[in-house]
Amino acid sequence: MKILFIGDVTGSPGRDMVRTYLPKLKEKYHPNMTIINGENAAAGKGINKKIYKQFLEWGANVITMGNHTWDKKEIFEFIDEANNLVRPANFPEGTPGKGIVFINLNGTEVAVINVQGRTFLPAIDDPFRKMDELVETARKRTNIIFVDVHAETTSEKQAMGWYLDGKVSAVAGTHTHTQTADERILPKGTAYITDAGMTGPYDAILGVEKEAVMKKFLTSLPVRFEIDETGRTQMNGVLVTVDDHTGSARKIERILINDDHPFMD
Amino acid sequence: MKILFIGDVTGSPGRDMVRTYLPKLKEKYHPNMTIINGENAAAGKGINKKIYKQFLEWGANVITMGNHTWDKKEIFEFIDEANNLVRPANFPEGTPGKGIVFINLNGTEVAVINVQGRTFLPAIDDPFRKMDELVETARKRTNIIFVDVHAETTSEKQAMGWYLDGKVSAVAGTHTHTQTADERILPKGTAYITDAGMTGPYDAILGVEKEAVMKKFLTSLPVRFEIDETGRTQMNGVLVTVDDHTGSARKIERILINDDHPFMD
Amino acid sequence: MKILFIGDVTGSPGRDMVRTYLPKLKEKYHPNMTIINGENAAAGKGINKKIYKQFLEWGANVITMGNHTWDKKEIFEFIDEANNLVRPANFPEGTPGKGIVFINLNGTEVAVINVQGRTFLPAIDDPFRKMDELVETARKRTNIIFVDVHAETTSEKQAMGWYLDGKVSAVAGTHTHTQTADERILPKGTAYITDAGMTGPYDAILGVEKEAVMKKFLTSLPVRFEIDETGRTQMNGVLVTVDDHTGSARKIERILINDDHPFMD
Amino acid sequence: MKILFIGDVTGSPGRDMVRTYLPKLKEKYHPNMTIINGENAAAGKGINKKIYKQFLEWGANVITMGNHTWDKKEIFEFIDEANNLVRPANFPEGTPGKGIVFINLNGTEVAVINVQGRTFLPAIDDPFRKMDELVETARKRTNIIFVDVHAETTSEKQAMGWYLDGKVSAVAGTHTHTQTADERILPKGTAYITDAGMTGPYDAILGVEKEAVMKKFLTSLPVRFEIDETGRTQMNGVLVTVDDHTGSARKIERILINDDHPFMD
Ligand SMILES: [Fe+2]
Ligand SMILES: [Fe+2]
Ligand SMILES: [Fe+2]
Ligand SMILES: [Fe+2]
Ligand SMILES: [Fe+2]
Ligand SMILES: [Fe+2]
Ligand SMILES: [Fe+2]
Ligand SMILES: [Fe+2]
Repeated sequence: MKILFIGDVTGSPGRDMVRTYLPKLKEKYHPNMTIINGENAAAGKGINKKIYKQFLEWGANVITMGNHTWDKKEIFEFIDEANNLVRPANFPEGTPGKGIVFINLNGTEVAVINVQGRTFLPAIDDPFRKMDELVETARKRTNIIFVDVHAETTSEKQAMGWYLDGKVSAVAGTHTHTQTADERILPKGTAYITDAGMTGPYDAILGVEKEAVMKKFLTSLPVRFEIDETGRTQMNGVLVTVDDHTGSARKIERILINDDHPFMD
Repeated sequence: MKILFIGDVTGSPGRDMVRTYLPKLKEKYHPNMTIINGENAAAGKGINKKIYKQFLEWGANVITMGNHTWDKKEIFEFIDEANNLVRPANFPEGTPGKGIVFINLNGTEVAVINVQGRTFLPAIDDPFRKMDELVETARKRTNIIFVDVHAETTSEKQAMGWYLDGKVSAVAGTHTHTQTADERILPKGTAYITDAGMTGPYDAILGVEKEAVMKKFLTSLPVRFEIDETGRTQMNGVLVTVDDHTGSARKIERILINDDHPFMD
Repeated sequence: MKILFIGDVTGSPGRDMVRTYLPKLKEKYHPNMTIINGENAAAGKGINKKIYKQFLEWGANVITMGNHTWDKKEIFEFIDEANNLVRPANFPEGTPGKGIVFINLNGTEVAVINVQGRTFLPAIDDPFRKMDELVETARKRTNIIFVDVHAETTSEKQAMGWYLDGKVSAVAGTHTHTQTADERILPKGTAYITDAGMTGPYDAILGVEKEAVMKKFLTSLPVRFEIDETGRTQMNGVLVTVDDHTGSARKIERILINDDHPFMD
Repeated sequence: MKILFIGDVTGSPGRDMVRTYLPKLKEKYHPNMTIINGENAAAGKGINKKIYKQFLEWGANVITMGNHTWDKKEIFEFIDEANNLVRPANFPEGTPGKGIVFINLNGTEVAVINVQGRTFLPAIDDPFRKMDELVETARKRTNIIFVDVHAETTSEKQAMGWYLDGKVSAVAGTHTHTQTADERILPKGTAYITDAGMTGPYDAILGVEKEAVMKKFLTSLPVRFEIDETGRTQMNGVLVTVDDHTGSARKIERILINDDHPFMD
């Protein structure tokens, strides 16, 4: 089984890339399943119901989130009914939404989990112990488990990768909006990448207009961060090939589409 | 001119990789100059005089540093005489050592600058304004300027890249010990990568024994972080091709050597 | 000379306390000068021109600020003309407003400086070196120098107090909204307190409705922080007595008015 | 019942103050019980068995801790047998030691709890939910519950105070080493203070030699922090009077002994 994972889709430039290139990627790679990190899909901050539905219509099976999950108030109105949306599982008990979903692909189940780090991020529950619990839950139904670990530091994400090696099919990082070049199959069979990258503006800083971000660093004054809507765009992600029976990963490839790396059929 | 930059060399596994592969890389790529980030060269923390000398003997021209510059007390004894060692330039006035060095390659000068970010790192002087000053200084002598920006977040490093676009030859990030896949030539001619990566242990977390790091995340108790001395190793870096006259970058390529990406002659 | 300093006035409850009690405090203590920290005066976030003018009408001589200086956009329109408003001096060069003001009291000048810490606060210029510069500037005109050090940690504020001991008349901390009980005259004659406290709601958390703050800690979800407008209120500050000639402090007394410590004539 | 609580005893200067003044305080106030925060008792970092025993011999009933609990390796050898030592309760399950202890005073039980905040401190379990659990446990045996909340920010400590108001007898903050002047009885009967302060050096910064701390802020270079062993000393704490039957607090008084506030019989 092939799982396509698309990194933090950011604003309308990111959504446009999904609409344009998801069909092409499907034609090229024939993934059995597509997962999109959508925490920045609505103007860079959160997601709304319309965009969530669009992603499913455009061919995504699951939408994962992160620290921006709650940025659009509308989320609280539809998250409990959004069966294909996963928010970080280690928010405390009672938090709306789900941290794990199961997708049935012609009889084969895939578990998708979203979990958030704590280093330089808000204080929430221990992501490692939460994963113990979720892996146990998931394993009762399937060996194919995909984990989006949303975290700031390379150390916390790599620790999660090694911690889950042999227990899940893939651990793909998100949040830094910058694809890393360390994709690999860990020794016990888990596909790993520290960050899948970002889908959205190409001549920007994490998707935000670069002038605003530079001004922030130079002045420490309040600056309005807007998604760069007019420039060139990019798509980032990974394609993971998994053994249907054991859930072990066989292959992980980076997906990178931009003017310097144009899409090739 | 070609400049080879090697990411954070970590402990003896990292030094061994440099000794083994730097000659091979020189033979393959014929760089005119080699820069090594050495902030973790001595058991993962700082550098000493012996290692600094070794790096030069093995073929490096300049050693850059970072937040670990001061970890070995010995540094204070030799840094002022170490003409090929650059520590972050934006430490406050009066700090030992230099933030910029000039290397003369058969009459062509290259400026090498090390600058440190402030997000999630100790409070020091503004790296952006410091770069204004250093670029002006450097430009009086040469157009070929290489900047190692040592910082935690992708946003601060990318802001620095865009800020310096057209003013320096290359901006290569360090510190996260994880190579990013976003190497590119920015529109005004500056080569850029968010992180050049780490040279050292391959089956570890940023070079540190993975069991210790996982224990830290799981317990929050004190844990001794030791460099993983026995496992497989890797080398990370970038090769930048620069126009000798204008200082503009023509090309940036990632260097990645490990068991999954073996060195090829 | 006596200088009355009133800690972070927060929202309308804080402004009401100033209007009501500043006249009573003046009648009781006869301060020669009143300084108000006004960074939270406008609904808890920043200040506007109307409130700034009101503070002066109600008897304040200088308004100091802090990390909330820029929260109301209106500030950019009047800060350069606001001759009695001081914002943190160690924002980078080119920042609107002033970090030091001089007040002439019947021929005696008083310098008032606002400086901001960097620990757990945005990256700005070194407050210690900035104070070297400002103390030198101020000393050319007067020995009476009052410093509002706006910082999060007790260590950074105490370091500033000891650093300036003997160089300025008083160092009073702000920002934590909680009055400390460590007011004292340091050995070389500088009056010091780690935090002067907050003027505003009494049954709240730093002035904010306590239910919202607790919800934030319990859920990590977005919560709207509103000033507690309906409950009991308090006033916090210090009264410093300074030798007019030497500028040395002779006395520092805490001011604390609330239902548990009612104002006494 | 009267409970005397002594703030972070720091190094030998702090221990000397306890040995000298604890008998005097007992003679003056006749507390039924003494609790000492001992996280900095051994040279400023942690505690050892000898010091723990001394504190008990000198008249303490319980020793509370904080983020420095684990600084001396020896702690792991005796914490599980130390029946009068409480470490932060919200370290994850499996952590050595106890987060709550019960003391029997002639048939009346007192529960003492230590809990640690998460803002600007290591990621551990939610202190609020942990308190729900511990209050329930404690209430089965006694209404007299004393909580040492060890945290950095005033907001997190005040949130804990309000959260526990009416559920416990007293919430006394520690960690900032600076006594606050906000002691009060909250509306539902819980005694509260944001920080009880520090017992140790008086002419120092949080107990540490002030020159070293200033050097750190000025240079960002490594600095050895040593307890100021030679200067004047102080004792900080609070005395809480509690109704034996209901557990409600009737009174909270600050204890402050230093050259500016000499002890009076
Ligand atoms: Fe994101
Ligand atoms: Fe994120
Ligand atoms: Fe490093
Ligand atoms: Fe580093
Ligand atoms: Fe404030
Ligand atoms: Fe503030
Ligand atoms: Fe402490
Ligand atoms: Fe502490």
